Amino acid sequence: MPNDIPEFLGQLAIILFSTKLLGILMRKAGLPQVLGFIIAGLLVGPALWEVIFGEIANPIFPIKRSGYLDAFAEVGVVFVMFTAGLETNLKDVKDTGIVSFLIAAGGVLLPLAAGVGLGAAFLPEEGFSTWLFIGVVMTATSVGITVEVLRELGKLQSKVGTVVLSAAIIDDVLGIMILAVVLSLTGGRTDNAVLSAINPNGNSFVSVLWILAFFVFAVGAGIGFSKLFKYIEKKSPHTRRIPILSIALCFLYAFVAEKVFGVADITGAYIAGLVLSTNHASAQYVDRKVTINSYTLFAPIFFASIGIKIGFGNFGGHILLFAACFVIVAIAMKIIGCGGTAKLCGFKWKDCVRVGVGMIARGEVALIVTEKGIEGGLLSADYRAITVLLVMVSSLLAPILLKLLYKKDDTPLPLSKTATEEGSYE
Amino acid sequence: MPNDIPEFLGQLAIILFSTKLLGILMRKAGLPQVLGFIIAGLLVGPALWEVIFGEIANPIFPIKRSGYLDAFAEVGVVFVMFTAGLETNLKDVKDTGIVSFLIAAGGVLLPLAAGVGLGAAFLPEEGFSTWLFIGVVMTATSVGITVEVLRELGKLQSKVGTVVLSAAIIDDVLGIMILAVVLSLTGGRTDNAVLSAINPNGNSFVSVLWILAFFVFAVGAGIGFSKLFKYIEKKSPHTRRIPILSIALCFLYAFVAEKVFGVADITGAYIAGLVLSTNHASAQYVDRKVTINSYTLFAPIFFASIGIKIGFGNFGGHILLFAACFVIVAIAMKIIGCGGTAKLCGFKWKDCVRVGVGMIARGEVALIVTEKGIEGGLLSADYRAITVLLVMVSSLLAPILLKLLYKKDDTPLPLSKTATEEGSYE
Repeated sequence: MPNDIPEFLGQLAIILFSTKLLGILMRKAGLPQVLGFIIAGLLVGPALWEVIFGEIANPIFPIKRSGYLDAFAEVGVVFVMFTAGLETNLKDVKDTGIVSFLIAAGGVLLPLAAGVGLGAAFLPEEGFSTWLFIGVVMTATSVGITVEVLRELGKLQSKVGTVVLSAAIIDDVLGIMILAVVLSLTGGRTDNAVLSAINPNGNSFVSVLWILAFFVFAVGAGIGFSKLFKYIEKKSPHTRRIPILSIALCFLYAFVAEKVFGVADITGAYIAGLVLSTNHASAQYVDRKVTINSYTLFAPIFFASIGIKIGFGNFGGHILLFAACFVIVAIAMKIIGCGGTAKLCGFKWKDCVRVGVGMIARGEVALIVTEKGIEGGLLSADYRAITVLLVMVSSLLAPILLKLLYKKDDTPLPLSKTATEEGSYE
Repeated sequence: MPNDIPEFLGQLAIILFSTKLLGILMRKAGLPQVLGFIIAGLLVGPALWEVIFGEIANPIFPIKRSGYLDAFAEVGVVFVMFTAGLETNLKDVKDTGIVSFLIAAGGVLLPLAAGVGLGAAFLPEEGFSTWLFIGVVMTATSVGITVEVLRELGKLQSKVGTVVLSAAIIDDVLGIMILAVVLSLTGGRTDNAVLSAINPNGNSFVSVLWILAFFVFAVGAGIGFSKLFKYIEKKSPHTRRIPILSIALCFLYAFVAEKVFGVADITGAYIAGLVLSTNHASAQYVDRKVTINSYTLFAPIFFASIGIKIGFGNFGGHILLFAACFVIVAIAMKIIGCGGTAKLCGFKWKDCVRVGVGMIARGEVALIVTEKGIEGGLLSADYRAITVLLVMVSSLLAPILLKLLYKKDDTPLPLSKTATEEGSYE
């Protein structure tokens, strides 16, 4: 073992202790635990300490970015997206059908367009790719926060509840597809040898075809794997084979997506989860096992690593103004985009506002998209802090506003028993 | 994310697929799965391919050693030792008491002495430290194989069964302590800043005192943590807090052991597990969660990494002769050391042979000790293949011989339901 691995083990201990502590505190305050994980990362990372003490050379604390940390964080985000795919109930989506799809589309397109406009206004020196990416960061709703609030209010199975839930799922899928296209088109993946060979001139049309080829391949191969797993599951039910093979499949998809098709690894992991989710019984079993891997180790490391990488180097007036506008636009456009579409679909005004507010929370996906944008050179590292701000404000606002909107209408339904207890990070 | 992480994800997929496949095959053949994991590593690693094709520069396959792989493998071995500690039932050990302790001591001291002699005979050019280490590799019995065979034969709760089980546990503890002392005395840990500061002249007496200080610290702090966890468990039973905090504690102990006390990180992890094992209810719960982490990902990676690191560079006649003697001596000395002590304790001859044979299997700990010896510069890298040979031969012999020895005495007890189903890697 290289000599610096014991230091890394010490850092893992610090990360796990601090994320658990801050996660519990956040949960007590009614906020999502991921926020606690990120804040823990900020506290144990170098940013705040260096503001006070200047450069610190200690190899253990404050925890700096390292190759080991990057690898664990990447496996973490791959698992987060894989379980998101596994937990997707495509049947629910089909049931609420076209209405949810339209609401999701409204809530994706309006923030996307507004983000591009905001980028053009504030960062005219950057190109269209960066503006587009600012829009992409705004697109994905975080379903977890909304679901927990609606469940608490007893409204999860109301019309608004089911529509919001389905729309949030669809909006994840749309967001992931837009991310795949944008990353691929904007040259964020120019290191992909296969894509460069097929498409040496960077023709956009060929790139989009190649992305479509990925989805066709992924779903096609996925159906085959899903059948194979079903067969194994039937022969020897609930052995450890299925979870291990599923995790292997997740890594394989992540690798093939990134290295063969030039699509982000997280897209591959998400699609792997989505494909396996169709096989219900084993999807739940696999999800439980992967979630344990994820919550006990990898997810805290991933979210803490975001906090660890936050820097306050370039924070001036301009960027603070931009951050404020970014957060306001991102929240307002979700309310208008989703609520407006709901109105067009014939919802009552009261329910339109509820649907719109139910969609404002941003979480994991926005953070992940931001990381991918920074890696691809499309966003400056300052975005980390800005997206964290959006996640904080929207996660604070969503429960407060939803509770206010439901205050007069106080007849809770019986509590349903769904996936969140396993799916959250407590 | 650095550009080579997607390649690593692809390698993880290959490792998981191949270890699962070979693991299942081994199990079907009645052999321990870890052997399958190591063979899978040998197959996907460079050794065999380079014998056929010469140097291969592909960044993905065959899988070569990398920093990422090392970090995952190290977390893997830390988890393997942590769960070994957690699964230790100190009450069982107390019940069979002094007899088991004497048998374990006989089975540790005789192979240790024989190993030193073998080293002196074959490797006179190496120093006493290396000879000692050859002995240490021989000491630890792998309880898993023996337990599974005895359970299958319905003899796990017989006198021989309980004595073998307890002696194997004690022999793990003795082995770990000897490893700690030997590694520390032979300068395998000279990079430890704290130890160098306390003991600049490398005085052996001070080093041993410092190791004792570690055990006192570890057990003392451990009792405190164990009480704290009991309190948390009582306040909010079976939440995810306990497993996460336990894993954090395991990493903390591994780090402190290595960096503060100059003891191997795996010793720290094992002691952390041992300390938490005294709190029964939560130990089982934590063990289940950590085992899931371990078997779905980390343990296969660790054992495969041993196979990946195997090299056949220096294999000549001398080393093959040494390997043969090593395996024969390691097996014979366990039978004589344990069986002979059993005779002195008043066992019947038939049962003495059974006890001796029940202790011959070597596994995880021998492999781990070998890795630590190679890292510390006390053993040449050829030892990897030699220890793997010992594990293979002894795991093949143990079940065959035990079944023969019990053949005439065929009245199986009712099958007991103990930890192995969760503890094995299926």
